[in-house]
Amino acid sequence: AFTDLFYKPDDETLTQTLFQTSEQKHILKNQQRCLEQQTEMRVQLLQDLQDFFRKKSEIETEYSRNLEKLAERFMAKTRSTKDHQQYKKDQNLLSPVNCWYLLLNQVRRESKDHATLSDLYLNNVISRLTHISEDSARLLKRSKEIIFQLQEDLMKLLNELYTVMKTYHMYHVETISAETKLREAERQEGRVKGLSGTGGGVEPVFGLRIEERHQRRNAARKMEKMREKRKAKYSENKLKTLKARNEYLLTLEATNASVFKYYIHDLPDIIDCCDLGYHSSLSRALRTYLSAELSLEASRRAGLEVLEGAVEGLDPARDRQRLLGLYPTAFCPPLRFSFQAHMGDAVTQIASQPQLQAELTLRLTQLQTRLASLKIENEEVKKTWGATLTTLQDMTVLEDFDVSHSFTHSPSSESVKSSVSDGYLNKPSLAKKRANQQETELFYFTVRELQYSFSLGGA
Amino acid sequence: AFTDLFYKPDDETLTQTLFQTSEQKHILKNQQRCLEQQTEMRVQLLQDLQDFFRKKSEIETEYSRNLEKLAERFMAKTRSTKDHQQYKKDQNLLSPVNCWYLLLNQVRRESKDHATLSDLYLNNVISRLTHISEDSARLLKRSKEIIFQLQEDLMKLLNELYTVMKTYHMYHVETISAETKLREAERQEGRVKGLSGTGGGVEPVFGLRIEERHQRRNAARKMEKMREKRKAKYSENKLKTLKARNEYLLTLEATNASVFKYYIHDLPDIIDCCDLGYHSSLSRALRTYLSAELSLEASRRAGLEVLEGAVEGLDPARDRQRLLGLYPTAFCPPLRFSFQAHMGDAVTQIASQPQLQAELTLRLTQLQTRLASLKIENEEVKKTWGATLTTLQDMTVLEDFDVSHSFTHSPSSESVKSSVSDGYLNKPSLAKKRANQQETELFYFTVRELQYSFSLGGA
Repeated sequence: AFTDLFYKPDDETLTQTLFQTSEQKHILKNQQRCLEQQTEMRVQLLQDLQDFFRKKSEIETEYSRNLEKLAERFMAKTRSTKDHQQYKKDQNLLSPVNCWYLLLNQVRRESKDHATLSDLYLNNVISRLTHISEDSARLLKRSKEIIFQLQEDLMKLLNELYTVMKTYHMYHVETISAETKLREAERQEGRVKGLSGTGGGVEPVFGLRIEERHQRRNAARKMEKMREKRKAKYSENKLKTLKARNEYLLTLEATNASVFKYYIHDLPDIIDCCDLGYHSSLSRALRTYLSAELSLEASRRAGLEVLEGAVEGLDPARDRQRLLGLYPTAFCPPLRFSFQAHMGDAVTQIASQPQLQAELTLRLTQLQTRLASLKIENEEVKKTWGATLTTLQDMTVLEDFDVSHSFTHSPSSESVKSSVSDGYLNKPSLAKKRANQQETELFYFTVRELQYSFSLGGA
Repeated sequence: AFTDLFYKPDDETLTQTLFQTSEQKHILKNQQRCLEQQTEMRVQLLQDLQDFFRKKSEIETEYSRNLEKLAERFMAKTRSTKDHQQYKKDQNLLSPVNCWYLLLNQVRRESKDHATLSDLYLNNVISRLTHISEDSARLLKRSKEIIFQLQEDLMKLLNELYTVMKTYHMYHVETISAETKLREAERQEGRVKGLSGTGGGVEPVFGLRIEERHQRRNAARKMEKMREKRKAKYSENKLKTLKARNEYLLTLEATNASVFKYYIHDLPDIIDCCDLGYHSSLSRALRTYLSAELSLEASRRAGLEVLEGAVEGLDPARDRQRLLGLYPTAFCPPLRFSFQAHMGDAVTQIASQPQLQAELTLRLTQLQTRLASLKIENEEVKKTWGATLTTLQDMTVLEDFDVSHSFTHSPSSESVKSSVSDGYLNKPSLAKKRANQQETELFYFTVRELQYSFSLGGA
């Protein structure tokens, strides 16, 4: 009955530790789940990356095929042409045709490079990603094995702690009850001793029996014996409690140390094990992608620079020489017309006679004046068409071909599209420009014709 | 009859000039044809270029669409994920996820750039080429008008030359015949004069009639008159011939001068007119293409550099911190387990009693020795797994991601494909490498477990 009074508080402290323990159990489970989730996220990411590269690989292949087709189509067309035979023969092409061929070569080059890109995605990047996935899964498995073992040990300790604590409480309870019993015995013994003591001295009572006195002495002795027994029991329990408490305190230390070790050292270690090589392998897979892309860039730029050189090499003078060379008979001046003397006529010079002299002189002076005025007119016209030509050339030498601004990526990406319509395409100004150009051109030709028309015959 | 004798050679020289003239006519026609052919070639080339860019524009558009679809597909997928919400919230992503987002951004950027490229081909480059075509056709037309006029003038001169030459020959023929007739008259006159002279003095003949003498004197006078007439005719013709020859010589000079001017000055000028602005306009069209392509390169590279930065930023430590942050309850150490004193128990320390002393002391020394040996073992193991870890990390830090060699364009373009299978993909070595890695990994984990298993409880 009264022992319940002692047990209630025990239960409280016990259940408290018990609760802390089971809560730990729950947390430890959580830790495993975290590692699993982390790995699941990784595997998912790696899966997405693989799908991504597989799809991009397809896109690159298709792009490459289309470019190849494009180049082939026009290559075939040009192969047949006269120019191409010429090219095969002496590599000496009209500079625009040269640009055209290099343009087709560039497309071919791009086609090849994008095929290579696609190939690298499929056979290098993706397999790297697959391997990282496998590694992550394997590492998770091993890490979970370890963490499970560690947690097992930890729980064992916690349970032990609970046990030793219970033992300590139990012995303490018994010590308490033993002490109470001891005190009870001492109280009784004291009362008995008191009786026999008074029966010995104060006021002699006639007629008290010897048996009665003997009885009392027995009772006192019994009481003493019982007290002895209870005292022994009590100190025995006290010693047990002491031992139990010591055990409890030691286990408490050990547990706290282990818990500390687990959280501060082991757990981070295990997370590291789970991460082992993940970042560096992923980095290498992505660097492979970057290396491929950047190499494609470099190759493409190299090709464009060749083409750029050819464009700078566009040369009207050289091309005109080549044209004249292609049609030699058409453009080389004919032999001078020679004087065809009639048979037996010995005179081959302009000759005179007195009656002609006057007429010849007059004609000479006329020619001289005509020539003089022509010279002046010609100079005038020359100036005019020179100026006009410069204007025309300035018109066709405008540096209006920079479109880099179309490729700026402002946050509001819409601005990209719009910017295309700037520059050359600014329709109104373009129309005006072209009208202006043709007008100047017309004037230029008129002036030229005027000059051609000059001749000693005229006027 | 005998005049035929004189006319034959004339015809010869005449037809020779006539031939030279008509041959010129043929050559001049050729020149026009050359200019036409040249322009036809240009227009054809420009047409090819336009078709080329139209087709390439289609290809770029399709490529751009596919890339956009690719990016969209995965963007949509990630938008839903927990990580993305996190990203929206604090921009603090796991470094691999950050790379993944930038990868998708890069694809988006490429998609936009190739769309811009396509747009520039269609609306800028192609219209430039169209304009050059129009210009070339117009310039050819005008040039042909000029050349036609010049050739007309030239032919007029040649015909005039032919005419004046014929005139000279004709007068010369007549001079010759006039001279012959003159000589004939002189011969007859002489004979007549001889007769009348003898009739005057030698040997007087009786009976000669006065009428006869009178007749002879008349004949002589008639003869003299005729000679006079023929002499006049002769010198008149001689003068005419002189004039005609002079005219012929002058025209000859003029013709040669004009032919020279035409071939040396006018013809090249006209060819230049035909070329007017062709090369510079074509150059600008091609430079527009180059500017577009190079800007696309620059933009792509810029994007890749951002991505490169993210890859360099792959950081296991930071990511682990973030993981721990995501699950705070799971990984922070619990409160220390505290001593739960049983009710009324005042002792909270390890206590002793004479009869326990020995036992406690023994236990202490045991623990101390165990601890010492554990320390040593632990050091050993630490060294081992440290070394193993280094080996593992070295394995996953191999710089095997450079694939630039796959993009070298050797003349034998086949070498491109083959080179892809080098490096990471060299299957046998790869398998070996991975086996080796997993073996080391296994050993690493075993050593770790061994270390974890250490505890004061054990042994």
